[in-house]
Amino acid sequence: MKKTILVIILFASLLIQAQTTEQNDKEAILAVMDMQIETWNNYDLEGFMQGYWKSDSLKFYGSNGITSGWEKTLENYKNGYPSKDHSGTLKFKINDLSKINDGAYFIMGEYYLTRTVGDANGIFMIIFKKINGEWKIIADTSS
Amino acid sequence: MKKTILVIILFASLLIQAQTTEQNDKEAILAVMDMQIETWNNYDLEGFMQGYWKSDSLKFYGSNGITSGWEKTLENYKNGYPSKDHSGTLKFKINDLSKINDGAYFIMGEYYLTRTVGDANGIFMIIFKKINGEWKIIADTSS
Repeated sequence: MKKTILVIILFASLLIQAQTTEQNDKEAILAVMDMQIETWNNYDLEGFMQGYWKSDSLKFYGSNGITSGWEKTLENYKNGYPSKDHSGTLKFKINDLSKINDGAYFIMGEYYLTRTVGDANGIFMIIFKKINGEWKIIADTSS
Repeated sequence: MKKTILVIILFASLLIQAQTTEQNDKEAILAVMDMQIETWNNYDLEGFMQGYWKSDSLKFYGSNGITSGWEKTLENYKNGYPSKDHSGTLKFKINDLSKINDGAYFIMGEYYLTRTVGDANGIFMIIFKKINGEWKIIADTSS
């Protein structure tokens, strides 16, 4: 009887721990998204790019096909948004944030750019991976 | 000296093993994509859906927003493609297949539907996860 209670307590505490970890992961990931909003709206594209994995293996899939690598992705952002008039004000609508497995999550969402040169919006799916203790976007498809 | 050689052999064999595992994973994932082409082109939507995780947690992000769950996703396919004339002939162009971490990969690609009712095409990003020994799509964004 005592054993059963111990096993129940053990399982319950493991379950709570797993839920807490996932909750913490999701908060940390959403903090990265918030940082991206803030840096983008200050026209700080390098700051915005800190949300992405600084690797040649980063993959960005957009209207120009796949861009590989952090440097090239930053370059594309700089070319596509040459001034604050082009970058405007960014908002995200997060429609889903789900765990893939330990250390990886995906987000499905919408982006809205309010700009004097004309508004723009679309949907995206991104994959976050924990790398050296930090959550980084390793893949982004925006359309 | 003997120890050094042993350590080198050990590392080399681990590296080869890791590469072999990734190669096997990728082949198994591409086999699922091939199965989807074959079933789709036979207008076997249930067969096509075997590539997806049979779970209420499956996420499909398309023109109608997010659909949650395997059953609802199949229903949407049935409604969207009520006959072979609507489903037509499917082709995939795989532009990238990358590992996220152990047990998870993503694909970025293009789909092409050749149909008498008018062709359709677009891009997609999907996430594959190994579940009970089988590779299943757990998230799909198509646009």
